[in-house]
Amino acid sequence: MAKEKMVKSITSRDEDFAQWYTDVVREAQLCDYSSVKGCLNYLPNGYAIWELIQSDLDRRFKETGVENVALPMLIPESLLEKEADHIEGFAPEVAWVTHGGMERLQERLCIRPTSETLFCDLWARTVKSYRDLPKVWNQWNSVLRWEKTTRPFLRSREFLWQEGHTIHATYEEAEERTIQMWHVYEDFYKETMAIPYVSGRKAEHEKFAGAQDTYTVEALMHDGKALQSATSHFFGNGFPDAFDIKYVDKNNQLHSVYETSWGLSTRSIGALIMVHGDDDGLVLPPHLAPVECRVIPIAQHKEGVLDKANELFAELKKAGYRVKIDDSEKSPGWKFSEQEMLGIPTRIEIGPKDIEKNQVVVVRRDNREKIVVSMDEIAVKLREILETIQSDMYDRAKDFLDTHIYTATSLDEMKEEFTKKRGFVKACWCGDPECEGEVKYVTGGAATRCLIEDEEFVSDKCIWCGKPAKHMAYWGKSY
Amino acid sequence: MAKEKMVKSITSRDEDFAQWYTDVVREAQLCDYSSVKGCLNYLPNGYAIWELIQSDLDRRFKETGVENVALPMLIPESLLEKEADHIEGFAPEVAWVTHGGMERLQERLCIRPTSETLFCDLWARTVKSYRDLPKVWNQWNSVLRWEKTTRPFLRSREFLWQEGHTIHATYEEAEERTIQMWHVYEDFYKETMAIPYVSGRKAEHEKFAGAQDTYTVEALMHDGKALQSATSHFFGNGFPDAFDIKYVDKNNQLHSVYETSWGLSTRSIGALIMVHGDDDGLVLPPHLAPVECRVIPIAQHKEGVLDKANELFAELKKAGYRVKIDDSEKSPGWKFSEQEMLGIPTRIEIGPKDIEKNQVVVVRRDNREKIVVSMDEIAVKLREILETIQSDMYDRAKDFLDTHIYTATSLDEMKEEFTKKRGFVKACWCGDPECEGEVKYVTGGAATRCLIEDEEFVSDKCIWCGKPAKHMAYWGKSY
Repeated sequence: MAKEKMVKSITSRDEDFAQWYTDVVREAQLCDYSSVKGCLNYLPNGYAIWELIQSDLDRRFKETGVENVALPMLIPESLLEKEADHIEGFAPEVAWVTHGGMERLQERLCIRPTSETLFCDLWARTVKSYRDLPKVWNQWNSVLRWEKTTRPFLRSREFLWQEGHTIHATYEEAEERTIQMWHVYEDFYKETMAIPYVSGRKAEHEKFAGAQDTYTVEALMHDGKALQSATSHFFGNGFPDAFDIKYVDKNNQLHSVYETSWGLSTRSIGALIMVHGDDDGLVLPPHLAPVECRVIPIAQHKEGVLDKANELFAELKKAGYRVKIDDSEKSPGWKFSEQEMLGIPTRIEIGPKDIEKNQVVVVRRDNREKIVVSMDEIAVKLREILETIQSDMYDRAKDFLDTHIYTATSLDEMKEEFTKKRGFVKACWCGDPECEGEVKYVTGGAATRCLIEDEEFVSDKCIWCGKPAKHMAYWGKSY
Repeated sequence: MAKEKMVKSITSRDEDFAQWYTDVVREAQLCDYSSVKGCLNYLPNGYAIWELIQSDLDRRFKETGVENVALPMLIPESLLEKEADHIEGFAPEVAWVTHGGMERLQERLCIRPTSETLFCDLWARTVKSYRDLPKVWNQWNSVLRWEKTTRPFLRSREFLWQEGHTIHATYEEAEERTIQMWHVYEDFYKETMAIPYVSGRKAEHEKFAGAQDTYTVEALMHDGKALQSATSHFFGNGFPDAFDIKYVDKNNQLHSVYETSWGLSTRSIGALIMVHGDDDGLVLPPHLAPVECRVIPIAQHKEGVLDKANELFAELKKAGYRVKIDDSEKSPGWKFSEQEMLGIPTRIEIGPKDIEKNQVVVVRRDNREKIVVSMDEIAVKLREILETIQSDMYDRAKDFLDTHIYTATSLDEMKEEFTKKRGFVKACWCGDPECEGEVKYVTGGAATRCLIEDEEFVSDKCIWCGKPAKHMAYWGKSY
């Protein structure tokens, strides 16, 4: 890496947020576009974050009894068509396989945009008795949706995700599972991503194609836009009935089953970037940092410095840290910039004077604080520092969220909020999608993100039409 | 699970091996066919084995410096065509996407049968200097090949695998990496799968499409057929040159890069079944057993039995074992059969008499040995027992392999070996694919599995044509 690759060549976040985002993705080498239009190459730095997300979330899933499976990537057209809302929602955006080897297929196959139909098809063949229930399954894979406009991590034709699918003997059990998985996502965002959120049910017309209820987690990006960050869907028995999944109970009575599905995708990496990043690049919460600490020797040409730095590196590695050392020929300043660009939560500077004093200097990525730590204590102290960074990052993001939630009881207020400020606006609404559409038009894009069901209404009227309010919702512009 | 699902309804292994295999896959609920012809549903019991394979192998990869990535599942036709041997090898067996959403695509896209072309395309755009080398990347995904005949795990249109791809500044470094990854597979088969093998380079015409050398690991199934279990390919600079990947060295001179790729798939689960399984079902090596031990209470209606069994279960869980308890209403005999069918390496029987004596009975799945262990020591002893099972399973399989390798110096001998016996035959060969073809015909399918390069030739003549021998090889029938 020579000077031509010098980092810090990124746009300021407040000057042009979209360009800043693109610059960070490129300079931190997280992903790039492939030769296949709209499809991404997830590069090592980006994929390593996804691996940590997978490992943390998978553990949370398994603690609730989830089992992993892998179903095919192809769906016969006749299967996709079985549930009316579903095919209507997805048909315009799937890719079709028409030829296998040298032959034209008798029936087209689409590449899965989501796998409800495949799970239902499998269960229709294999679930017969109450003893076969529940099924609580998940798969980690990629899906494909033929999007017109794409952005790294936020929207691409193929993206990585997990899709959980479950069926249950009763309505209540399925609804409970839907809400349970929604809470798993909430906890994951708070504890692992260090990202706060608002969350709730989606309005009627914002639900997943075929779902009876969709629960969402909505995070606020630094530019004030919302990002739908994970969703959990309750299907009732609509989908399973369309596929004729039935079971007999202990008394030999035939019943419908009740279904859920829930997913989180590589979009979450976009959220990480846009919530925590700053003008020097990525800032990763320690729990999702592929490298938690980079050791950077100072004046490494001086005798003993490299040896001591490598000793420290070995000690931290042995203590279980995800640690690297940069003992290349580059200048310390260059190394600092690169570590900052990559969002590595801490660096440890160690030079001749530090060695003399039997100490090192830990520099936090999030707030630049320098902490002098005795060499004897570093293997223990570093964990404490990383945990402090993790919770400080959450607190800062929570503070940002809290100070960017406004209230509007009139259309003028609403317009003003979305002109002058950025964030979520609490406002009431009659529930008519047309009213929402009008609000969206006059505010330049603000729509309901989720319903607020546990607070008193701020107004008894719809913000657009003035008719009685049926819902209060968080409104926001979104990615 | 009622009586109609009673286990043990499988064919004897020696009576009809193919049917036995199908029965085990079905009864152990590892996978089944989906509604998409030739594509599998990997069910929880099967996928959990794959997760353990992934986790073990991924750790081995990362210890050698491998980084994980994710490239698209689609390949433009023009990209697939860039390397002549490669397109010739794969064109007849890819699936083609011709429509995206409602539109016909200008260029067809195939679903990846393997991803050399995508990696080369990415590197052609991003690798410029010696500082960008080497790239040592891997991805875990699924690929699709339009096979005509399919068998669970052994051959299916879509299958799960990992594909590693690397490029290097020198021929030697790339060749070294090819061999290094081949050895990683060997170690993995021996230590984790408890499966011995023969291994070596593939004969010229058996190499991967576009490769200069293919190194293979060949395991011997219980029916005497070989299974190609993992391969590592050295491409030289043929592939990279076709994609125009070049780098400049320190002196600003332009050079070719040298490439490797290496893969292991869900076929490995087929090997596990066919090497270790017996007439009662699956037998899993402990290192790959999703459940290492199942606790089965005896006379559980008697006071205190269930409590004590659950205490034991909790203790083992806390000690880090992958353990389950079967406290259902089914009879102990039924539970034993099921645990055996699933291949769970140990069960612990605990009944009133055991409790009285402060002991439990550990029963090994592999050899039925019953081991009485004091309740106070079980949390430690069980690990020792599992490790013993792991190494005994390898030893038994190694013994089977060693006693099923024969030598032939004449065609009659060769024919006799493959008529009367099962296994590998060492024999010499002139290197002409036509001779191999003739041998294959007269032996009913035996071909070279890999070359033997570190042993003295058993004959100086080709087993078919009698011309001077160029190679000695392991010959075998294969899956």
